[in-house]
Amino acid sequence: MKNTTPFREKLTRAIQNAQSFLCVGLDPEPEKLPAACQKAADPVLEFNRRIIEATKDIVCAYKPNLAFYEALGKSGWETLNETCKAIPKNLPIILDAKRGDIGHTARLYAQALFDQLGGDAVTVNPYLGGDALAPFADYVDRGILVLCLTSNPGAGDFQTRLVNGHPLFLEVVRKVVEWDRHRNFGLVVGATYPDQLQQVREAAGDLPILIPGVGAQGGDLEKSVQYGTRNGTNLAIINVSRAILYASSGSDFAEKARAKALELKTAMLSAVGAKITLSY
Amino acid sequence: MKNTTPFREKLTRAIQNAQSFLCVGLDPEPEKLPAACQKAADPVLEFNRRIIEATKDIVCAYKPNLAFYEALGKSGWETLNETCKAIPKNLPIILDAKRGDIGHTARLYAQALFDQLGGDAVTVNPYLGGDALAPFADYVDRGILVLCLTSNPGAGDFQTRLVNGHPLFLEVVRKVVEWDRHRNFGLVVGATYPDQLQQVREAAGDLPILIPGVGAQGGDLEKSVQYGTRNGTNLAIINVSRAILYASSGSDFAEKARAKALELKTAMLSAVGAKITLSY
Repeated sequence: MKNTTPFREKLTRAIQNAQSFLCVGLDPEPEKLPAACQKAADPVLEFNRRIIEATKDIVCAYKPNLAFYEALGKSGWETLNETCKAIPKNLPIILDAKRGDIGHTARLYAQALFDQLGGDAVTVNPYLGGDALAPFADYVDRGILVLCLTSNPGAGDFQTRLVNGHPLFLEVVRKVVEWDRHRNFGLVVGATYPDQLQQVREAAGDLPILIPGVGAQGGDLEKSVQYGTRNGTNLAIINVSRAILYASSGSDFAEKARAKALELKTAMLSAVGAKITLSY
Repeated sequence: MKNTTPFREKLTRAIQNAQSFLCVGLDPEPEKLPAACQKAADPVLEFNRRIIEATKDIVCAYKPNLAFYEALGKSGWETLNETCKAIPKNLPIILDAKRGDIGHTARLYAQALFDQLGGDAVTVNPYLGGDALAPFADYVDRGILVLCLTSNPGAGDFQTRLVNGHPLFLEVVRKVVEWDRHRNFGLVVGATYPDQLQQVREAAGDLPILIPGVGAQGGDLEKSVQYGTRNGTNLAIINVSRAILYASSGSDFAEKARAKALELKTAMLSAVGAKITLSY
């Protein structure tokens, strides 16, 4: 076990300390890595380490997406494992895996993500229902962030369809609130739908919300922060990946990543006033 | 690229040649491996190889579930890769990954599963919608099997809820039929709901259906085969894992796995008459 501080507490402290809702998505693409990293034994790991080093005091979490590591082949898992180890212990690691399987198999995914990789939280898919998420939720000190409304156009295929007069994504919120016996669930809502984000926040009480899609995907930063955090009083994790990772392709990539992260952190902070005062 | 025979054609030939709808789920659990495998350099791989060797002439496909390999930690990916290589070229490899992510990230998952591991087909989750599945479907010679109705109790949380008067899982079928421009989509329906399986088959035309849940999970074998294959005329893949893998825990495990697989294959065949005559 990596730690026994509950995810919500660890996240609250991280947001409070850094005065930041910003999370950096560690989604490295080998063909985009600056030349400065290419000479390292593991260029992807070197890149991640330098991004972490450059941003660790201004973020509340890091979020590696597993697809980027699986696409590396057999070395990918080890690169991800070492990346997780490079993240400071006081900052939550959100493993963006979007997993979803039943019973025993879900337990194995939880084992891989929580025990093997030491994730503080994971993203999961709700389609299989509550019993498929229970093996994750049984890790009471870890966070389970359930996909609710995603930032892609296909969100309209099922997520916004009406069930009992309510869009499916709000039914997901209702169920997640019901499943949250250990106070370790949260939700994932894309920044590209600010009005729906507000509806989710209303229905979700004080559940943490992970909000990807600001930056390259064009989501609205100001509204995402205001609605997601309920004006700075609730837990939200605003994820940005490409806009920070690839702020420069030169040898100054880490410096430029820091500058971009600072700019985003500051914009988020001013969206909710000048100071974050969360209580746990 | 491992092969360029379209998945449906490869599957049709495999079913026809073996006269079998049986698929073996390669879901190895280290603590259940017989002593006979424990001495090998990679006990899990040794177990898989012997199961494959013992059953390869009586099955139409193999289906490794990725959770079982991820739970092994850093050696897991290589064990899975070697397992895939041990599967005869004429038998489709179905990578049960239940992945689902958006745009560029989905493309990386497809790359990992199709290019790195050489899967002939993958299972995916529909919640994120059509554009999230498109990067998989762009591999026109590979199969995309979309979760529709799963065999667990939680299927009732969302999958059977009414959308426009129809259960969500039938909306998934309708969408999948619409997305199937390259004739490479299929569906996943648990064997524990035979009536709903029949509804899915009616709505799905001749799409391949992967049916897990026979055996340890208690699904109805006879009805699964009859409804799934529309009495032997459509493509269905009936998956059994534990009942075959752990038919014996002794040194005769492979022999007993073969006997169990033969028994299941024969029961499936007699459920649809004595002979399978599919055309492609």
